[in-house]
Amino acid sequence: MEPEYDVIILGAGISGLSAAKLLHARGLNVLVLEARSRVGGRTYTKRDPDFQYADMGGSYIGPSQKRISKLANELGLNLYKVNDNERSIFMDKGKIMPYREFPRVYNPLALMDFISFWRTVDECCMQVPLSAPWDCPRAVEWDGITSQEFIDRHCWTRFTKASAESMIRMTFAIEPRDMSFLFFLWYTRSGGNAYTHMATSNGAQDSKIVGGSMQVAERIADNLGSDHVMLNKPVSKVTQHDDGTVTVATLGGSSYSCSFVISAVPQALIGRITFSPPLPSLRNQLIQRIPMGSCIKVLLYYKTPFWRKLDFCGDLWGTDLMAEAHDDTKPDGSYPALVGFLNADNARKYCMETPEKRANMVAGFYSKVFKSDEALYPVASVEQNWMAEQYSGGCYMGATPPGTLTTLGKVIRTPVGKVYFAGTETATRWSGYMDGAVQAGERAAREVLCANGMLRQDEIWEPEPDPENDGVTYNPFADSLFLRMVPSVPAFLKFTGGALALGAVASVLYLHRNRLPQLFPN
Amino acid sequence: MEPEYDVIILGAGISGLSAAKLLHARGLNVLVLEARSRVGGRTYTKRDPDFQYADMGGSYIGPSQKRISKLANELGLNLYKVNDNERSIFMDKGKIMPYREFPRVYNPLALMDFISFWRTVDECCMQVPLSAPWDCPRAVEWDGITSQEFIDRHCWTRFTKASAESMIRMTFAIEPRDMSFLFFLWYTRSGGNAYTHMATSNGAQDSKIVGGSMQVAERIADNLGSDHVMLNKPVSKVTQHDDGTVTVATLGGSSYSCSFVISAVPQALIGRITFSPPLPSLRNQLIQRIPMGSCIKVLLYYKTPFWRKLDFCGDLWGTDLMAEAHDDTKPDGSYPALVGFLNADNARKYCMETPEKRANMVAGFYSKVFKSDEALYPVASVEQNWMAEQYSGGCYMGATPPGTLTTLGKVIRTPVGKVYFAGTETATRWSGYMDGAVQAGERAAREVLCANGMLRQDEIWEPEPDPENDGVTYNPFADSLFLRMVPSVPAFLKFTGGALALGAVASVLYLHRNRLPQLFPN
Repeated sequence: MEPEYDVIILGAGISGLSAAKLLHARGLNVLVLEARSRVGGRTYTKRDPDFQYADMGGSYIGPSQKRISKLANELGLNLYKVNDNERSIFMDKGKIMPYREFPRVYNPLALMDFISFWRTVDECCMQVPLSAPWDCPRAVEWDGITSQEFIDRHCWTRFTKASAESMIRMTFAIEPRDMSFLFFLWYTRSGGNAYTHMATSNGAQDSKIVGGSMQVAERIADNLGSDHVMLNKPVSKVTQHDDGTVTVATLGGSSYSCSFVISAVPQALIGRITFSPPLPSLRNQLIQRIPMGSCIKVLLYYKTPFWRKLDFCGDLWGTDLMAEAHDDTKPDGSYPALVGFLNADNARKYCMETPEKRANMVAGFYSKVFKSDEALYPVASVEQNWMAEQYSGGCYMGATPPGTLTTLGKVIRTPVGKVYFAGTETATRWSGYMDGAVQAGERAAREVLCANGMLRQDEIWEPEPDPENDGVTYNPFADSLFLRMVPSVPAFLKFTGGALALGAVASVLYLHRNRLPQLFPN
Repeated sequence: MEPEYDVIILGAGISGLSAAKLLHARGLNVLVLEARSRVGGRTYTKRDPDFQYADMGGSYIGPSQKRISKLANELGLNLYKVNDNERSIFMDKGKIMPYREFPRVYNPLALMDFISFWRTVDECCMQVPLSAPWDCPRAVEWDGITSQEFIDRHCWTRFTKASAESMIRMTFAIEPRDMSFLFFLWYTRSGGNAYTHMATSNGAQDSKIVGGSMQVAERIADNLGSDHVMLNKPVSKVTQHDDGTVTVATLGGSSYSCSFVISAVPQALIGRITFSPPLPSLRNQLIQRIPMGSCIKVLLYYKTPFWRKLDFCGDLWGTDLMAEAHDDTKPDGSYPALVGFLNADNARKYCMETPEKRANMVAGFYSKVFKSDEALYPVASVEQNWMAEQYSGGCYMGATPPGTLTTLGKVIRTPVGKVYFAGTETATRWSGYMDGAVQAGERAAREVLCANGMLRQDEIWEPEPDPENDGVTYNPFADSLFLRMVPSVPAFLKFTGGALALGAVASVLYLHRNRLPQLFPN
């Protein structure tokens, strides 16, 4: 029996649709099955007269995210810069530190510690191969500890510790104890470095898509046509038959046949699908060990962008209520807004409250941070609790606890028969971001083309659109000679301690120089 | 519309069937839906002329596991003692240590360290409430680290470290880095103490069921009748309607209605089912963070129980290939056999080999350990790789990485509308064992009875059948005065170091007593 489709793709997020787009362009007959009533997956743009449009999920595009920028451009979408003209804020336990370039640290020991810690992270990152973190020489050691354990061991001052923990909450939407240090290093490197993940201008939060990020998925789906993208079709079973065809059944009782399948759902959701024959051992165990992050995104709209008048750009991060916040005003200055993230433990702690209470809480927080009463009176609010999404499991992405990458991680892209794996979790560059979703989708599509005899094996992995950002170069945080030369706190203490001790011994000897012959008589 | 059933139970393991048995006895109309073609879940007895019968999953019953012993007895099943008359073996990196009571440690520092480490574990365990480990005063601290981190911090000698790591691999079927220390403490306490989990006689491996443990599930299912237990019915969707009825749909397209649902599948597999309305945030995130262990159980049959002739009982544990092994000879002495466990990293490492290769590897290992060529020639072998089981996910049970128990754990037994939760993972006593499965199934059944007005709230939690083992008392490992008085290695070193330093100072002063007036002239 001739299969109805060449390729069936599970999930109409950016990854699945990128795969579909590429395969469709090569003349294959594709079908994308989406569980939800909309495309976009973890990119979700809400439309409402109150705020025109709002990105409730993945939203930002950085300048080194060449794949998603190229795709957006190709689809006729425009980017606009996120405002960061005014001062940013770092918060630590209620202490508000406004800054321009980077939080100012006046304590020289804290500065030394900060530079040395992030330099150490940079040095570790550089040892982690992006396509195979499990091959890193110290993989077993680093996958054997949580990121928290590394922080506890290497941070000597409160400020450095706060910066590291905050970076993880804002970048991963989980706590440092939830994730293996090797995963942290690999993921950090996959985006360049820690600073790139965190920064607005020139970093991962540089720009947004005018009209919202869900348009990427919508436009691809529109181009494919409704024959090729079906909504409200949660896939329940994938059966691989002896004759090489694969049938894909949905919860509603539909069934489609094809030659190849691309799974473009998060690894954590693959267990929703029954496979016949069943998934192999390592995949079956991997998908239980790459849980999705904990994130509630809260947008508050105001009459005026009052923070700008106070010389704040809206960028905010730290150890307090919000893992991060940004200005979310429309590019033409309309709909002044702040977007904030309740992440990790705070997301788990406050998810039982009502959206109204959360909005009030966030407004109260802003009023303290910006010292402005206007913050208390948003004119509209909208939020998205990704932890409640059965077809996402959480946001932003899956991250592995200790022991998973080294013992199970290497099968993450290994096809199972005629089933191939996309989804941003399987990317090697900007994994977890929209850019990684595109890379993963296109790579899985090329794997299928290769299996179908339409592409050579060595053509599967395409180089980065911009060779200067080919996913292997690493731009370290501390790249000036000064930053490379600053000692670590223990090294400094050892040095100064040694010098002090030597000085003390010399002083004692000098003071008692007349009695020395008596102490050591010959 | 009147629902067809009072209660539909998902999963015909011991937990689901215990619930069904109790509800059926109270006159409710129950339906158990099982995904597999057999009942028993993680208890699975293979029958074959080569070995008569063999337990491929949960098998052992300890004397403090009153619920499963009572149930087995009620079902007319008999227990027999696992042989441990001869010497046991502890292995560490190829070093074979035969012993009778406990591995002999001749190095006094190692013995001191061993006693002090396990005493510390006992002391920590006693602070963890069985029904609410998240309420433990040090919950956040202990849930913030892996068990490996605790071991690394508190073990001073190789032997103690090896004993702790081996205990975790044999008891949990995962590596110490995979699991939060709080989970380790809670689980350990739920079975009594570490020694009880590990021991054969009087411990968790004390006895087995003649004819195999799957008979528990089979006999309950037989008593319920085939109208009430349906096989090959993987549940795909649970819909809670406004009128209070719940419909349960299966992958094959069947649908059944009921008033209540009890989920008796592992938490890690709940994500296989689509819920309408969807599961709440915390449950949705919890089920992604309680992955199933990594275990391959290998049974080798021999002409004679050659190990007994060499004064070995077959009990084996340690850091080498097998996490543990036991004599699995039938109670009448027929079918001499050894059952061994490839657990944790070794399970993940060797799961890609063929069963034949694994059997050879294990036979080769036994021949070295027992120094016997006969070990190389098993007459039959049978094995079970639980990691490949799509309807188990792994074995023995789910265990949480850092951060999960304290932030998500407390919803583990919280009903979702009319859906209640059983499964050994939700037990508070002998969680992870068959005994916990019974406790959890019966508790969930009583919750349903209570919701149905047939039971008072305070009758839900029944006391342990034996009040002396009520799940709250804790029988510490180190319970003699001597064991309680032994100092820890750092305390000992501090004491001896202090004494030595004092002695040194006194000696110097004594030797130079004549010159003191000159050194400190008045």
